[in-house]
Amino acid sequence: MGDQATPPAPELAAMAINDGPCLKHPFSDRAPVRSIVCRPDGGAALAGNRVRAGGWVKTGREQGKGSFAFLEVNDGSCPANLQVIVDAGVADLSTLVQTGTCVLVEGLLKMPPEGTKQKIELRVDKVLHVGPTDPASYPIPKTKLSLEFLRDHIHLRPRTNTISAVARIRNALAFATHSFFQEHGFLYVHTPIITTSDCEGAGEMFQATTLISEAEKLDKELIMNPPPTEADIEAAKCTVGEKRWRKEPKLKPGIPKKDGKIDYGQDFFGRQAFLTVSGQLQVETYACAVSSVYTFGPTFRAEHSHTSRHLAEFWMVEPEIAFADLQDDMNCAEAYVKYMCQWLLNKCFDDMELMAKLYDKGCIDRLRMVSSTPFERITYTEAVQLLEEAVRGGKEFEKNVEWGIDLASEHERYLTEDIFKKPVIVYNYPKGIKAFYMRLNDDSKTVAAMDILVPKVGELIGGSQREERYEVIQQRIAEMGLPLEPYEWYLDLRRYGTVKHCGFGLGFERMILFATGIDNIRDVIPFPRYPGRADL
Amino acid sequence: MGDQATPPAPELAAMAINDGPCLKHPFSDRAPVRSIVCRPDGGAALAGNRVRAGGWVKTGREQGKGSFAFLEVNDGSCPANLQVIVDAGVADLSTLVQTGTCVLVEGLLKMPPEGTKQKIELRVDKVLHVGPTDPASYPIPKTKLSLEFLRDHIHLRPRTNTISAVARIRNALAFATHSFFQEHGFLYVHTPIITTSDCEGAGEMFQATTLISEAEKLDKELIMNPPPTEADIEAAKCTVGEKRWRKEPKLKPGIPKKDGKIDYGQDFFGRQAFLTVSGQLQVETYACAVSSVYTFGPTFRAEHSHTSRHLAEFWMVEPEIAFADLQDDMNCAEAYVKYMCQWLLNKCFDDMELMAKLYDKGCIDRLRMVSSTPFERITYTEAVQLLEEAVRGGKEFEKNVEWGIDLASEHERYLTEDIFKKPVIVYNYPKGIKAFYMRLNDDSKTVAAMDILVPKVGELIGGSQREERYEVIQQRIAEMGLPLEPYEWYLDLRRYGTVKHCGFGLGFERMILFATGIDNIRDVIPFPRYPGRADL
Repeated sequence: MGDQATPPAPELAAMAINDGPCLKHPFSDRAPVRSIVCRPDGGAALAGNRVRAGGWVKTGREQGKGSFAFLEVNDGSCPANLQVIVDAGVADLSTLVQTGTCVLVEGLLKMPPEGTKQKIELRVDKVLHVGPTDPASYPIPKTKLSLEFLRDHIHLRPRTNTISAVARIRNALAFATHSFFQEHGFLYVHTPIITTSDCEGAGEMFQATTLISEAEKLDKELIMNPPPTEADIEAAKCTVGEKRWRKEPKLKPGIPKKDGKIDYGQDFFGRQAFLTVSGQLQVETYACAVSSVYTFGPTFRAEHSHTSRHLAEFWMVEPEIAFADLQDDMNCAEAYVKYMCQWLLNKCFDDMELMAKLYDKGCIDRLRMVSSTPFERITYTEAVQLLEEAVRGGKEFEKNVEWGIDLASEHERYLTEDIFKKPVIVYNYPKGIKAFYMRLNDDSKTVAAMDILVPKVGELIGGSQREERYEVIQQRIAEMGLPLEPYEWYLDLRRYGTVKHCGFGLGFERMILFATGIDNIRDVIPFPRYPGRADL
Repeated sequence: MGDQATPPAPELAAMAINDGPCLKHPFSDRAPVRSIVCRPDGGAALAGNRVRAGGWVKTGREQGKGSFAFLEVNDGSCPANLQVIVDAGVADLSTLVQTGTCVLVEGLLKMPPEGTKQKIELRVDKVLHVGPTDPASYPIPKTKLSLEFLRDHIHLRPRTNTISAVARIRNALAFATHSFFQEHGFLYVHTPIITTSDCEGAGEMFQATTLISEAEKLDKELIMNPPPTEADIEAAKCTVGEKRWRKEPKLKPGIPKKDGKIDYGQDFFGRQAFLTVSGQLQVETYACAVSSVYTFGPTFRAEHSHTSRHLAEFWMVEPEIAFADLQDDMNCAEAYVKYMCQWLLNKCFDDMELMAKLYDKGCIDRLRMVSSTPFERITYTEAVQLLEEAVRGGKEFEKNVEWGIDLASEHERYLTEDIFKKPVIVYNYPKGIKAFYMRLNDDSKTVAAMDILVPKVGELIGGSQREERYEVIQQRIAEMGLPLEPYEWYLDLRRYGTVKHCGFGLGFERMILFATGIDNIRDVIPFPRYPGRADL
């Protein structure tokens, strides 16, 4: 007790400071559960310390004919609960034991008697707060709930074991992402969400507009202030001798039009604006100035995809490297994926154990394999040959395999899961199926593009060396039937001080699916958006 | 030479690996300039090393009657340039010396002769790449350019000293943000960009919609496939004996309406959706489950503000802490701001020196002061008294001071810049000027809100303890004339296992203005969006 020093928990030095008699969070009224229970000794060294702890009751039961209660309390700082014991004299036990009740309690940490499971417990002598729950109406009871059911309660689902573990894994992968790129000298660049450029072919876009709301506002004003009648106009003319009213109302209801088309000149930005589908083109402006950069932000697709792999709003990581070619790009992408896998093994092992138990018993081994095994690298042409061989050997695919096709998910997964049983980088794709900005190879048939395929999700990363030759890219834009004018700024990067450069994009939710083994992408983002659904 | 070890640059261990004969970037073809010149000895210890370097020429000049050229080359990894010397035999010097030319060169590092300024130079023997620039048309010549001019060339402006320094400072502050919250056990939560909730009173919102583009698509289809004529219908009737054509075309042009109003049931999400103005309400769902969380993402305002302080798209940091009250909130916010200031002093001192030289000679002292001085904390009532005293003493404000007003920027800056000369936290504001979710104090007149005011920008942070009492918040919503139904999910957080909690929001661009002393917010975000402008 007293001032004796206690060893800080791994990764939690700043939180586990012994602030007088209590272990205490620096900006909160209690010690995080993690700082008490996530210790190699199960917290034994803390026995005898006075501590304040808070969280939500996972399970509770009264014991000894109602003379005391056992509570399993979780505060989201780790998957493990803190075992809390409250005497009947201290609080109303029947409220405390309900799943979902919030408690803030204080007491002494004790090791349970020998023979029981050796995990530190909190013997409470003060109950500082109770946030009760009505068990009759609480939507998230103790019983096992399906992930699908939880999607209808996204405001309460982070209180479940699965969704809170996903939150910690997602957080870890986000910080791993920043740490990786910062350690390697990349600058984080915020590319715009609202954009007037179209990253060609990426998909349908949402419009960001004030035209409709302005029109609705005018509609309302018009009802309240109807346009003047002929009599009003005559009267106005009489009183001041100048034309104060015009026959046409100044307020025109509806979306403004010009020459039969919508007049975007009257929209907020004076032109049509969209939600970004990728920050790549914009971040290239920074790569061609400060060399190594990355984005990490939300991107959007207005596709009516009702699959377990697509969202209308999702997060992407997009690095871009100057003075670098396709090999450098693959090296960077492979190092980044390995780094994230190792990071989860180091920092989220307890959450990964939960995923292994509940969703995918191979997920930990998969992280170990990916973090330690060199990725296979094959050309697109080799990939097609391997798939054709498989077909000759009896393998059936829904989509026919031949040189020139865009590989389907079934092909990608067969390559990574069945043939190589590890991540595969496929590179040098036919130019016909890829975007104009990818660098044309010397064969004039393929471009310096690469995709990383991983078991469980298929394509995790797509990237390319960018076409840095002014004449070539100009011709490619023309070949694809795209107008040059909107790309003049992009061409300027090639016109003035051009540099070879490359980059890739990683779908952040795909990475979480890959890591956890969870099946539906709607369960790995806090607030999923898809056709017909945008809760909160 | 050969395998001799060279000391790694500070913060750049991973980049300065001696990979065979060259210092080399791990995923690129060259050593970052930073790893060569940003060393305590100015790079002297590297003399004799063979190195490959790349970047853009800042200034170049031919010397010795055109027998060699001096180039100042910058790759954005630091504000300093690498001095590069190229002999006429190696390359065409007249191209190389143009500002904006991209070069990739190889050679030996040498210290210049005694007597000149002691900074390492690269004597080039191989020019591997030249990306030329036409000086007649290059929009970013060597001459001094105004920040306003550069806003018309946002795709090239990161090649300037100021904008690249801002990019490094912005990057540093972003990583400082993640580091601070991760060190303190907070989870990073991605709140939604597209939202169907309205964080009451925050401002005008953009709509995210596919209604207009769908209507335009239908318009086009209708032109290509005009509705059937009476004759078509008769013909169809004849051929199959059943009604295959309807008189009304199935495709209806225009925005779909229902009962005279726009039918959002047909929009992508089946309801009206907006771009978020704040992630606070949504992130509270995670705070009330996993305790300590933060968001860091883009937010939007469709306000027609043409000021140097407002953007239509900007980034916000919003932490939210459970088991924490207003005091904890202030402690966290103060610690976070101090941490960022200290981080810049530690990691971006050279960029800060540039800011001090070009924009605000006091900016470094300001960072030192803020990182080391306790913030003043006064109630709103005390703040109003101080301002009233100032008025009695002869100070003139545009807006009258009296208890109950929302403090204007002039008042805020007077408090922090003139009265206290340091950051000031004003707390306990009148409930009438604050949002419904802020916790009502026992006086029933004020709420537990706080703003942090700093010299140079005024309000940097706004936060509050949230009302966690179900009955009180329900009544506050009613008092403000808001409907209850859209807030039912928010009320659930109070209905089930409620917990005291608090949080705040920091405008990320405001923090950069504060740190750098730059005047216009459009210069501290890579792709500024404001009324009439959304380039790229």
